[in-house]
Amino acid sequence: MIAAADRQRIARAVLTYLAEPGDPVLTALLNVSQPADIVAAVTAGQPPVLPVGCWDTIRADERAGGLGRRDTARLEHAFGTWRRRLAGVPSEMDLAAFRQDGIRLVCPGEPEWPSQLDVLGAGRPYALWLRGEADLRYCCLRSVSIVGARAATAYGAHVCTEMSAALGERGWAVVSGGAFGIDGCAHRGALAADGVTVAVLACGVDHAYPRGHHDLLTGITAQGVLVSEWPPGRTPTRRRFLVRNRVIGALSRGTVVVEAGLRSGALNTARHARDLGRPLMAVPGPVTSEVSAGCHMIMREWGAVCVTGAADVMEMLTPLGEPGSREAAVPGDGPGSVQASLWPDAAGRGDPLIARDALDPLTEDILEAIPARGAGPATIAVAAGVGVDAVVRSLGLLAAGGYVERCSRGWRIRRRAG
Amino acid sequence: MIAAADRQRIARAVLTYLAEPGDPVLTALLNVSQPADIVAAVTAGQPPVLPVGCWDTIRADERAGGLGRRDTARLEHAFGTWRRRLAGVPSEMDLAAFRQDGIRLVCPGEPEWPSQLDVLGAGRPYALWLRGEADLRYCCLRSVSIVGARAATAYGAHVCTEMSAALGERGWAVVSGGAFGIDGCAHRGALAADGVTVAVLACGVDHAYPRGHHDLLTGITAQGVLVSEWPPGRTPTRRRFLVRNRVIGALSRGTVVVEAGLRSGALNTARHARDLGRPLMAVPGPVTSEVSAGCHMIMREWGAVCVTGAADVMEMLTPLGEPGSREAAVPGDGPGSVQASLWPDAAGRGDPLIARDALDPLTEDILEAIPARGAGPATIAVAAGVGVDAVVRSLGLLAAGGYVERCSRGWRIRRRAG
Repeated sequence: MIAAADRQRIARAVLTYLAEPGDPVLTALLNVSQPADIVAAVTAGQPPVLPVGCWDTIRADERAGGLGRRDTARLEHAFGTWRRRLAGVPSEMDLAAFRQDGIRLVCPGEPEWPSQLDVLGAGRPYALWLRGEADLRYCCLRSVSIVGARAATAYGAHVCTEMSAALGERGWAVVSGGAFGIDGCAHRGALAADGVTVAVLACGVDHAYPRGHHDLLTGITAQGVLVSEWPPGRTPTRRRFLVRNRVIGALSRGTVVVEAGLRSGALNTARHARDLGRPLMAVPGPVTSEVSAGCHMIMREWGAVCVTGAADVMEMLTPLGEPGSREAAVPGDGPGSVQASLWPDAAGRGDPLIARDALDPLTEDILEAIPARGAGPATIAVAAGVGVDAVVRSLGLLAAGGYVERCSRGWRIRRRAG
Repeated sequence: MIAAADRQRIARAVLTYLAEPGDPVLTALLNVSQPADIVAAVTAGQPPVLPVGCWDTIRADERAGGLGRRDTARLEHAFGTWRRRLAGVPSEMDLAAFRQDGIRLVCPGEPEWPSQLDVLGAGRPYALWLRGEADLRYCCLRSVSIVGARAATAYGAHVCTEMSAALGERGWAVVSGGAFGIDGCAHRGALAADGVTVAVLACGVDHAYPRGHHDLLTGITAQGVLVSEWPPGRTPTRRRFLVRNRVIGALSRGTVVVEAGLRSGALNTARHARDLGRPLMAVPGPVTSEVSAGCHMIMREWGAVCVTGAADVMEMLTPLGEPGSREAAVPGDGPGSVQASLWPDAAGRGDPLIARDALDPLTEDILEAIPARGAGPATIAVAAGVGVDAVVRSLGLLAAGGYVERCSRGWRIRRRAG
């Protein structure tokens, strides 16, 4: 069984090399076939043998840009293209080796997969390539996307950096696109506050783009995580930036636009957030500033909420109105919502409330597996050799008991005063 | 009958000398008595003989700050106060003389009364003292209130002046409070664009307050109108400013806050506009500016719409989405809505579309009565010796026929090209 899962995993990795995210033919095929079957068919040089009736499913996708009347012709054309690209795909062994380079693959349904991406439906990424210390799923449960113009003003840079730093300090992960201007300030503010930050790239996670952000991206790797739908080695294109934006909108609880001209790409991200039903926010600025015009437009016409700092953002994204005091689930985040409701803040300030020898053996094992510097539930689960669900349940108990506390990285052994 | 109407008119003028606007006892009495009867009772030194059951009406007002259990005691106390103030009320002859000083009185139901004030219910002004060339009712049908901080920044002053000038140019009257800062810029911008502007004062219309605005207020008299609930001679107090604000909110179709700190009096005006169901708008600014904090707060928490200039304001206040192309009635403005729907923009650009000898005699008379420099319907009605309704009907016909056109002052004889 494990071998089969690995086979699908490798197949998804291969698919990221073969087709662009959102490719209508591949999206339609994934509705009816397993990734490994599709890769096998490409390798064999012919479309997979599809179950009876599956074409109806594919046809139903036509409205969403899927296959239409010329199904067979398109399918064959796509397979031809993919087959030619097979030559550029690393061997299975090389794919496995990425792990040693600090690059890892996360597929739908795996512990670190951010299940809020599933709201993208058939358009969700085939898989995600990650690079960095943070646990993507864990940190994005309490995250906010901050995006904006490359040509930010000193005002926008100042406001963005302050906001990100304050959010990072309060344990919110800041998601952005790694670009110059507002994106860069968003990442830098979070890093400066020892917070977690997530850069969603339009190129491979091994590729420092823009080049001037080489050091910043390295810093994010150490304290956050780089994310890409494209495999290592890919370079960014204009189209990839736009496709990437839907992931920025979907990963976080809400999106803030700090500065954006009326034609800024940041408004594309904002539109995705709005269309996904996630809270959309904008920072106002002088009406005389062109790079605030997009912010004012989305406030007036898209219902973006006017936010002036981190406190406003946290209030918007914390339904109970108690910033930071309780977690709320990201919409559509099934297992995540269970996790979320199980995260109380560290109780009390004194000694553990539950004696250590009163802990059950499983919880004891999990406690042992939590690194001092902290880790996300998925990482702890791997270290303890148990399931993520068990870790989540135990973390709730351990937090209530005063053994562990939340940190920017996830959970760590509680530090005692004195 | 005319004598009786004049008696009520004089009585309302007297009441503005006796009690502050919104006085709960007087408000309750006006629900059941005519102004002249109340004045007669004050003069006679005893409360009026009230009809059976009227105390129930008065008691119903208790919730709104009206009379309560100690009705009789409060009534007698109020009558005592009013009686003492009688000595300071000018004689009827002197009241009539105000007309010659350029000061006039407008009472509910009269042609120049802005009936949108009736949404204030029992709290509407007893009467309004006016000074200036503009027809209050006419110009407020297409008006916007622009208010804000006294301590405006250069940014706020710039944005406000530009906005008011653009509104004035497009035939919108700008209503404000005559104060330093944003109010002053609102009036000045409108005047600079040859527009109409209305200053609602918290003192008598003969009183230049603040003193530094003496010239500005004189300018408003020439091109707009000063409005007050207080009779000539009264000086402003803190409480009067707050009471005055409800009139600013009620007079216009909507209110714009340009700059306001979190404790600015402008937010009091904004709250009135919101509570009256009128569109509330705010101009954003840098989040680092304290005098924009109030604007951002009302956007986020009171649902104020983000506006960046006159175009946004006109779009908000012109329901058909065609700025300036069609009039919309102010809510609650009964006869006004008829007037409004009858105002087409001047048709065509050539010769009149209806031959002059095809005009009916009444319309001909009204056309003759329209001064070249322009006037509001009420002024034209007086000059023609006919009713306002007839004037409004004829203006629609005359505009459609190409004889008259709208101007900042109301309607004027159409100027031909060449």
